[in-house]
Amino acid sequence: MKLPDSIRALVDALAELPSIGPRQAIRLVFYLIGLGSNNIQNLSQNIDELKKIKICERCFFIHQNPDTLCDICRSPARRQDIIMIVEKETDLLSIENTSRFNGRYFIMGAISKTGILDDRQKLRLQNLKNFIANSKNSTHTSNTPDTTHSTGAVAGQALQPGSGQAEEIILGFNPTSHGDFNSSLVEKELKPLAKKITRLGRGLPTGGEIEFADDDTLGAALEKRN
Amino acid sequence: MKLPDSIRALVDALAELPSIGPRQAIRLVFYLIGLGSNNIQNLSQNIDELKKIKICERCFFIHQNPDTLCDICRSPARRQDIIMIVEKETDLLSIENTSRFNGRYFIMGAISKTGILDDRQKLRLQNLKNFIANSKNSTHTSNTPDTTHSTGAVAGQALQPGSGQAEEIILGFNPTSHGDFNSSLVEKELKPLAKKITRLGRGLPTGGEIEFADDDTLGAALEKRN
Repeated sequence: MKLPDSIRALVDALAELPSIGPRQAIRLVFYLIGLGSNNIQNLSQNIDELKKIKICERCFFIHQNPDTLCDICRSPARRQDIIMIVEKETDLLSIENTSRFNGRYFIMGAISKTGILDDRQKLRLQNLKNFIANSKNSTHTSNTPDTTHSTGAVAGQALQPGSGQAEEIILGFNPTSHGDFNSSLVEKELKPLAKKITRLGRGLPTGGEIEFADDDTLGAALEKRN
Repeated sequence: MKLPDSIRALVDALAELPSIGPRQAIRLVFYLIGLGSNNIQNLSQNIDELKKIKICERCFFIHQNPDTLCDICRSPARRQDIIMIVEKETDLLSIENTSRFNGRYFIMGAISKTGILDDRQKLRLQNLKNFIANSKNSTHTSNTPDTTHSTGAVAGQALQPGSGQAEEIILGFNPTSHGDFNSSLVEKELKPLAKKITRLGRGLPTGGEIEFADDDTLGAALEKRN
């Protein structure tokens, strides 16, 4: 049966959103129609407001500040030389909710199952490298001469001895084989740019049961016992 | 962590939509931001367009016609005196896709798990009763005197002998105990208004396997064998 064009267009647009299929898209549209004019307009305006959201030029998280940096990157209370690399904004939010990280972030963008970084991700990574390499005067950056070789580092902007190095880069990828693979790739890429590269700890999740833990998790818990 | 107000508002709005939880709502918002200004605006406009969608005054399906009737209700090719009652617009679409029903529909609205009709549904049902009772001149309506008693029929608009009666009302509710319960309720309510009240056939679904069919389905298939 032919639906009006305006409905068809919206169904198609919604069905392209992540984890919304064509059936759910149709159900959503009928639900929205049932909400009535006012609610439809509110939702439409709320979505339109997203146009005003800016992306931080340093970490690629969202913000609405007059300049180009997000709240975390512009905060004097946060260490700019301790950088956690995460895939998604929602990962950042989860870490922030712990209130136990005082560094800043760097959002890579979701990595495809092939493990190959797309152009946007390469560009972002380049951006991070440039930033670290240029941040000679960071208060937290050590002043001891840098012995790292410049091979494999920033193209067209080789690291000079004494140039900036991050204190620590934390690879905040998911603890999956896929995430581990990406961690290795990114670690190799960033090695010259950080004194220390770490990953999030592995072990038993709080509230979990030993009986139901998988072998890898239990193995990690044994290895990392303290 | 505090998200900008405009994001918060949209997350809350999306999380209220059916089968979208708070986490998916946040993921969706970040995804939308990543789509960029143009796509955001398109989606916002597509949603705003829904304000122009009208609801058919006869069957409560959507339409965009200049008058008050949907394509099905205004079509001379469709029998107006054979009425299938369905819960949702999507049920109507599924039946239409079979191209094997030539009557019209009546959308009740999704029935709650309690099985009690809400005010809107009662109003719609009342609307259907009024329509049938007043349609004396339907080409398909038989002219034989109506022997049905008017008890339990339209309040304030008692059925007169010789008044309109639908040829058939099909109860198109889901084949669940919940749907069966509603069918009984609605059937009792509409009995005086139709010559025949039927339900969708029960039996083995095409492509299914006898081995995995549940007892009720197999029982129905035996009973309705032909």
